[in-house]
Amino acid sequence: MTPIYLDNAATTPLHAEVLEAMLPFLRGNFGNPSAIHSVGRKARTAVERSRKAIANALNASTGEIFFTSSATEGNNMVLTCCIRDLEVEHLIVSPIEHHCVLHTAEHLAECGKIKLHLVAVDEVGRVVPESLEKKLSKIKGKTLVSIMNANNEIGTINDIKTIGAICKQYGAYLHSDTVQTFCHYPIDLQELDIDFMVGSAHKFHGPKGIGFLYINGDVKINPMILGGSQERNMRAGTENVPGIIGMGKAVEIAQANMLEEQTYILGLKKYMKQQLIEKFDGIKFNGDVDGNSLYTVLNTSFPPHPKNDMLLINLDIAGICASGGSACSSGVDAGSHVLNHLAVDTNRANVRFSFSKYNTQAEIDIVVEKLGEILG
Amino acid sequence: MTPIYLDNAATTPLHAEVLEAMLPFLRGNFGNPSAIHSVGRKARTAVERSRKAIANALNASTGEIFFTSSATEGNNMVLTCCIRDLEVEHLIVSPIEHHCVLHTAEHLAECGKIKLHLVAVDEVGRVVPESLEKKLSKIKGKTLVSIMNANNEIGTINDIKTIGAICKQYGAYLHSDTVQTFCHYPIDLQELDIDFMVGSAHKFHGPKGIGFLYINGDVKINPMILGGSQERNMRAGTENVPGIIGMGKAVEIAQANMLEEQTYILGLKKYMKQQLIEKFDGIKFNGDVDGNSLYTVLNTSFPPHPKNDMLLINLDIAGICASGGSACSSGVDAGSHVLNHLAVDTNRANVRFSFSKYNTQAEIDIVVEKLGEILG
Repeated sequence: MTPIYLDNAATTPLHAEVLEAMLPFLRGNFGNPSAIHSVGRKARTAVERSRKAIANALNASTGEIFFTSSATEGNNMVLTCCIRDLEVEHLIVSPIEHHCVLHTAEHLAECGKIKLHLVAVDEVGRVVPESLEKKLSKIKGKTLVSIMNANNEIGTINDIKTIGAICKQYGAYLHSDTVQTFCHYPIDLQELDIDFMVGSAHKFHGPKGIGFLYINGDVKINPMILGGSQERNMRAGTENVPGIIGMGKAVEIAQANMLEEQTYILGLKKYMKQQLIEKFDGIKFNGDVDGNSLYTVLNTSFPPHPKNDMLLINLDIAGICASGGSACSSGVDAGSHVLNHLAVDTNRANVRFSFSKYNTQAEIDIVVEKLGEILG
Repeated sequence: MTPIYLDNAATTPLHAEVLEAMLPFLRGNFGNPSAIHSVGRKARTAVERSRKAIANALNASTGEIFFTSSATEGNNMVLTCCIRDLEVEHLIVSPIEHHCVLHTAEHLAECGKIKLHLVAVDEVGRVVPESLEKKLSKIKGKTLVSIMNANNEIGTINDIKTIGAICKQYGAYLHSDTVQTFCHYPIDLQELDIDFMVGSAHKFHGPKGIGFLYINGDVKINPMILGGSQERNMRAGTENVPGIIGMGKAVEIAQANMLEEQTYILGLKKYMKQQLIEKFDGIKFNGDVDGNSLYTVLNTSFPPHPKNDMLLINLDIAGICASGGSACSSGVDAGSHVLNHLAVDTNRANVRFSFSKYNTQAEIDIVVEKLGEILG
């Protein structure tokens, strides 16, 4: 039985055309893009085409796009290098950032390299712009603000345009982890005051092991990973050529079909929400579910029930893949730092269902029915 | 025309069976190994199988193997984290290490985080054990020694067993970049006093974008890239599952056929050397060519000739891929830091030919003939 996969915020299946685009670079076109001979140049040309696809998607210049092994690496790089190279003394993050921002920020604070400030989020997990402004108005010294575009667990979307304008007003750098929004929503960097952003291919039907970092052309930092002169001396290491090609293709496909997919997937989310409301008395949804929320994520809060503890396991046995929070934290027993911060009732079962274009309404019907059986 | 590829020290073609092993993880088995459901667990199981393959190849334990995006990342991690976590104050490297060690070492020294010492190498690029011992005997304070197993440009192999014994005697940590030797030579870590080592899949017919770091179980460092709890909290970021699977398969294939391939490729190298000697008066070879040298690398020094400057380009036009040195430095005009350090005559043309099991004697004949035409 093929499982019903509702964990697309953790990772997505590769698009068939993405694999097709990668295959030549896993076969004959195996060159090292740094080599000057014909085999190397073929790889180089393809790598630069992918860079162009990402730059086009963001309305940025190719010189502002750098390939990394993951968004995690990019987030680490921005925080680490801003402090080292831009005389940043203060770091403002939200308390519900992904761990790759939060743990890095905490580490840098523990090492005494920055003063860490937490901006307030409201009850749906939205950064409160007034809180950011208040903090920035009091801080003396260069500041980096790192706020995710959308939360990976509850789907709440932040108003990055307003946040960027506030940062600009106070001369702070803004970094945004756009892992859950890039290639799901249009992002026009000419309309936003953003200095850095990261994305990750496997969140939009591209391959794992490849991401990118955007660095605004007006900002100069040095590499975190040193060595060869790859990525114009900004990120050493032989390029993951098939990964880069796959990411480029996934970007092109996502950009071409964005509105259509958005409509389709949002329909699935709304349908599942309605079915769940009809099935379960007292069901609730975490995050800004009726407001500005990812169309790919439905974080559901089931009422207290003796079988809540076993809900994810029983779903898995029934062939349904969902998650309790971030996959990156699944090995950790501490529970979700996002739900903990939002003081969500832990007597309830909080399950993240996350969708892609490959899901169907028929799958939702099966999942809702199974949920009824498990919690019946 | 398919080019004749003699640049295998830069990168190697993927083995067809490696691609076959990767394909299921680029299709249906797309799970995030951190997810606890069936789709995630399939990926997790395969990832751990690859870890086991690497541990077996090194006679190490699986708990000592950590996946990274590249050897470059691993080298950066060892140097950075040893200083941060192990109270290392002194770093000894050879002046002909790969740039990912050398530049990282120089950066750390410039930041005042360590005192950097360069160990002497002899005229063929071999680390002089007496020089290492002399330095270690004088240094007070915890020391990390980082010496490559074999040089990527000239192929000279260091006596890591002796170097390890010296390090142990003086209580210094030893790290070795084994990018050019892992899966080309047997490495038994129970026979060597090594604390850290790195490898990279694309140097032995595995995929680009994946490498590993060995950390001796007796040594505890913290991660360089922070975030999720992947790799037992040692390296955050969603795992590059297809890359890891491909590396595991490439390791298994290389280990099974090592002696046979070694004999075959060494035959090609010796044959080419002999043909070149017969063709070109005054030809020389850089490195320890008749001694302990990589069977994959023949660094050739052609006598002064008006067409030397254009030699690599003319080879490329003739459909022959070779390099002047490290691919990682191909974009840099400064020339090879390895050859510069060894004071190689720059009026001569220094070309690295590097071989794999896919090369043939017939290809060598063509290359030698073309060289004769170009430099005729």
